[in-house]
Amino acid sequence: MLMPRTRSLNLFAPASLPMVQPGDNLCHLISQALRRENQALFDGDILVVAQKIVSKAEGRIVRLADVAPSDRACELAAQVNKDPRLVQLILDESNEVLRYRRDVLIVEHRLGFVMANAGIDMSNVLQEVNDDTALLLPENPDRSAQLLREELGRAFGAAIGVIINDSHGRAWRNGTVGVAIGVAGISAVNDLRGTCDMHGRTLVSSEVGTADELASAGSALMGQSSEATPVVVIRGVSWKSNEDAAATDLIRPREYDMFR
Amino acid sequence: MLMPRTRSLNLFAPASLPMVQPGDNLCHLISQALRRENQALFDGDILVVAQKIVSKAEGRIVRLADVAPSDRACELAAQVNKDPRLVQLILDESNEVLRYRRDVLIVEHRLGFVMANAGIDMSNVLQEVNDDTALLLPENPDRSAQLLREELGRAFGAAIGVIINDSHGRAWRNGTVGVAIGVAGISAVNDLRGTCDMHGRTLVSSEVGTADELASAGSALMGQSSEATPVVVIRGVSWKSNEDAAATDLIRPREYDMFR
Repeated sequence: MLMPRTRSLNLFAPASLPMVQPGDNLCHLISQALRRENQALFDGDILVVAQKIVSKAEGRIVRLADVAPSDRACELAAQVNKDPRLVQLILDESNEVLRYRRDVLIVEHRLGFVMANAGIDMSNVLQEVNDDTALLLPENPDRSAQLLREELGRAFGAAIGVIINDSHGRAWRNGTVGVAIGVAGISAVNDLRGTCDMHGRTLVSSEVGTADELASAGSALMGQSSEATPVVVIRGVSWKSNEDAAATDLIRPREYDMFR
Repeated sequence: MLMPRTRSLNLFAPASLPMVQPGDNLCHLISQALRRENQALFDGDILVVAQKIVSKAEGRIVRLADVAPSDRACELAAQVNKDPRLVQLILDESNEVLRYRRDVLIVEHRLGFVMANAGIDMSNVLQEVNDDTALLLPENPDRSAQLLREELGRAFGAAIGVIINDSHGRAWRNGTVGVAIGVAGISAVNDLRGTCDMHGRTLVSSEVGTADELASAGSALMGQSSEATPVVVIRGVSWKSNEDAAATDLIRPREYDMFR
């Protein structure tokens, strides 16, 4: 009897990436760290990159001292117990506030994702301790992912996929998990509807959030110190290149949303 | 300069597991498949097992012909376009119906998880094609995980963690992702609140849904054919044994739920 081959997936995270600073060339830093650790990228590899270092490299840093909060931001800030200037930034980055309570604002981000506090981060922002700065999401995470895909693909002569991940809370579950906010090359959602299961029956509803699952896998290796190992390479995933891939495919259309 | 060590995570899925049937000894089947493929379990390994095969082994199969739907089930069935007998099973397995629309009922499952259709599966249920059967979630997935942890731990002389995963939809994101519905040994949620970030600043809110991230990683390797490779071993995660671990820790308490 021929033994079926054990399937496997390997993730590794370069440990020598320096702390990313505004204006840094992320592609250069990542390829240097990989080569320094005798690693390379190969066809089919998927690179998961933490949102935080993409935002930093892109200089998406705002000094709270430069923000003038509106009356609405001040009122909301009092209700959620946040700095009115931070609330102003959240409002500026959002299409709509969906819910709020002490310590959290759930918004529809201008990119369309529903998330807490518009994904704005107040910790770990700059190398020097400075409570007065906030880090916004990348301007266009799909475009950021595409740039990394092109430049790193060229650097290693490999056709790769890129996922930019962030940590999101969920409506009914405790704890944050890694999700994709930007993708390039690899489809965010894989629609298996209409395909057949092992018994030839048609699968009715089997849309899988592939990029979110891989974002979570990357996040599990990054751990909490995503500034120490904010880049993970996933090797062994079976996927087909998709030039039109977009993380925004993961956004449930409002008309199918039963919880707004 | 001493080179920092590249961190890594390895996942593998035995490919020779037979189709699981009601009454099967899952521990026996898994250990046999691993040994057949020259694999073993070591201290610190985390085993991710698909809910479907746990439910099957536990015989959680119901023939729809044996179900007498109530008036309420019939009314609801007409609104969501489902078999009234299936709706009756969903109601029987749930504490409360939260939302519904054509093709989907969002419920609070009797275990406390919010999910679609009480996690009841109509596809791939038995080896023979039979549209007339439904597969319920395990009676107590944490207990099922604990049994696998004890028996497989003994079989390989290893201290392991076990996660039983399922595919869940999300409120605002398209596509399902793997989540944990049962755990043993490994904490479902890791509360990093109060610990310090790299700059010595206190992290305010950093509860991570570790078991869900690992469930998603396992799910990414299982792919859609979780009946073909419904078991994944994750090696390389840094975790501490927790005898009181429970997947129900992932359930957000109703008073913190802003979307019911």
